[in-house]
Amino acid sequence: MAYTAEIIGVGTELLLGNIANTDAQDVSRALSEIGVNVYFHTVVGDNPERLKQAVAIARARADIIITTGGLGPTCDDLTKQTLAEAFGKKLIFNEDEAEQIRAFFKTRLHNMELTENNYQQAYLPEDCTIFHNGCGTAPGCAFESGGTHVLMLPGPPRECRAMLESCALPYLKKLSDAEIHSHNIHIFGLGESAVEARLRDMMLALENPTLAPYAKDSEVLLRVTARARSKEEAESMMAPVLEKVRAVLGDIIYGIDTETLENTAVGLLKEKNKTLSCAESCTGGLLAKRLTDIPGASRVFPGSITTYATETKTAILGVDAGLIREKGVASREVAEQMALQVREKFGSDLGVGITGIAGPDSDDSGLAPGTVFVALATPDGLWCRSLALPFDRARVRTAASSHALDMIRRHLTGLPVE
Amino acid sequence: MAYTAEIIGVGTELLLGNIANTDAQDVSRALSEIGVNVYFHTVVGDNPERLKQAVAIARARADIIITTGGLGPTCDDLTKQTLAEAFGKKLIFNEDEAEQIRAFFKTRLHNMELTENNYQQAYLPEDCTIFHNGCGTAPGCAFESGGTHVLMLPGPPRECRAMLESCALPYLKKLSDAEIHSHNIHIFGLGESAVEARLRDMMLALENPTLAPYAKDSEVLLRVTARARSKEEAESMMAPVLEKVRAVLGDIIYGIDTETLENTAVGLLKEKNKTLSCAESCTGGLLAKRLTDIPGASRVFPGSITTYATETKTAILGVDAGLIREKGVASREVAEQMALQVREKFGSDLGVGITGIAGPDSDDSGLAPGTVFVALATPDGLWCRSLALPFDRARVRTAASSHALDMIRRHLTGLPVE
Repeated sequence: MAYTAEIIGVGTELLLGNIANTDAQDVSRALSEIGVNVYFHTVVGDNPERLKQAVAIARARADIIITTGGLGPTCDDLTKQTLAEAFGKKLIFNEDEAEQIRAFFKTRLHNMELTENNYQQAYLPEDCTIFHNGCGTAPGCAFESGGTHVLMLPGPPRECRAMLESCALPYLKKLSDAEIHSHNIHIFGLGESAVEARLRDMMLALENPTLAPYAKDSEVLLRVTARARSKEEAESMMAPVLEKVRAVLGDIIYGIDTETLENTAVGLLKEKNKTLSCAESCTGGLLAKRLTDIPGASRVFPGSITTYATETKTAILGVDAGLIREKGVASREVAEQMALQVREKFGSDLGVGITGIAGPDSDDSGLAPGTVFVALATPDGLWCRSLALPFDRARVRTAASSHALDMIRRHLTGLPVE
Repeated sequence: MAYTAEIIGVGTELLLGNIANTDAQDVSRALSEIGVNVYFHTVVGDNPERLKQAVAIARARADIIITTGGLGPTCDDLTKQTLAEAFGKKLIFNEDEAEQIRAFFKTRLHNMELTENNYQQAYLPEDCTIFHNGCGTAPGCAFESGGTHVLMLPGPPRECRAMLESCALPYLKKLSDAEIHSHNIHIFGLGESAVEARLRDMMLALENPTLAPYAKDSEVLLRVTARARSKEEAESMMAPVLEKVRAVLGDIIYGIDTETLENTAVGLLKEKNKTLSCAESCTGGLLAKRLTDIPGASRVFPGSITTYATETKTAILGVDAGLIREKGVASREVAEQMALQVREKFGSDLGVGITGIAGPDSDDSGLAPGTVFVALATPDGLWCRSLALPFDRARVRTAASSHALDMIRRHLTGLPVE
């Protein structure tokens, strides 16, 4: 049997247009992958009467109600009270959750106070399954009442996504006897529409498993999803699809079920026992930040230098001032010398140099915003990509750092780098 | 009289989670600015039965129904037909719109073939106001029936926004004489619940203007919103509320209607004509990245050094190796020396040093993850915050870099820094 779900977003900030309802998108995508139909989204403000109204409507047309938001500690966070009342459940003080909240506040030193209203979060509907919040203080929960399953998730997108993955999806998967399994194919070096053009016929023809593309920041993710009675059956259904996609896309696939380009790069550095340092100009620390997003990066990443002002490229990094004058600060030659210099300074195996125009404005050189040079210096050679990235400032910076990570990956796996 | 609107998003791609409902956000923000209340958003797929259901519900609880999406030329674009039927309006062929569509294909789409179903877009409800589409072929429209105003806008966000501005808002403004204005109060150094505890009575008592808190990454945003007949009237209603909030929260307010802590810090550096460099360990480049998110930061930010591995703190930055052995690499003393050294190396006015344990694991020192030291070296003195941040790795890093930005702000505005 296919379940039907309705997603109710709770929060006046949604109705004022302060934020987009990305929680509904995240939850919808996850539900579609496990075969739960979503026919309606509703958004309602921090108003118990109107929330009650929305719940009554949803209850009449869905088997599963998922709320997002309204679980916080402030007086306008009313989701739990309203849903519990609508389904005739008492709210009961949960000592374990209160302890978690206390522990969360205990170690904080800087100006943070635990107030009485934080304990409001420790009240939960009777007989519910508690969804522990790994990223914040508000726990979520789920209960069943008269054939309707009610799940409550927190509003902040990061907390909502984490709880969806770790608690809500496992809860929902148990309701159905079909199992859903999927693989994520990570791609760098081709846009979403180009990927889709190469695989379009296959995507349209496939029903189970399905194959669907998702655009990410300067990357593309393809997801293969199979519905089957067991993991083994799902895997054997997905295997030929994976093989076909690999044959079509080749080495622009940087990983299957890996997390990010930075995970892949740091993983390869660890595996090959190599160290990397970087010199950043227009990315201003973003590449270093992405590498150090990965726990344990210190084994392979001794550090980096951000030479944001032109004179620091010479003073701190030792780039030849004459070369900068002659070729321009945003040039292949300067990127290459930045990579070589930082590699020598840190004594690392690999060195990256990035220089260019992040925008929104051009610099004195007259080069267009989005002109970026990314160089990789290694014991085996020196490479540089010269890029024209037609994006806004934030995306130019992300894409430039992604190119550096892709060059590192390609070098460490013996593929052509430029 | 204040009108009440409901926004109905039409499109299966929304229910599958392929896209977020940014149209609802755009329309909501615009409505809130002209004083129209939005109490509900609904999203429904390309399904006439369920759309009819959603319209019936909306009609009973709103004066204005605004649909987005479902105006295109394909067979699943059914908004116009369904709404016209629900309100007993005939669809009438409009020769002017047909001509516009022909012209659009001829000039903008390079004579792309015009198919019969493109003409479907030229059928419009009788007695409606036509909203011409400057960015695409699908016209929108508005009509009034039995006291309900119905407005239909196209789904593609660019088309929706353009038609909202040029057609829908002028149509709606004629209905109402109230305006909405608001101010955002940005706070760092106190959690959402603690802010609310201090202002709870005020928040509950206020109706117009209203005062509401929003949690952001390690920050809090308070919004004051007033509904009035003019901007001047709204401002005079909000002034006493702003004054009261300032009196209660004091200097943890880092800005009113500013954007971010990094904008504030970079703005103050520019204003005071000061330069800043930083040495990062556990934040690994994040502070540099945030500073260089701001266009034009190179005037005040010469650069930074990420000393991620312990030995680079000595080799690259010149921190005393004996001090690291004695005090530990994550210590107040090392953070302070990092700040002093980087300031000297870059010859900048201010220097920041950050060292600590981002987690998820502890290091050899046995210090808990989230233990971070943030130091600021200036010509006037040296300060260090020692923090215990009970968050996951990503939030520890964000919060640590926010503390650095807050210390910069406080120093440059003459406030106590630690």
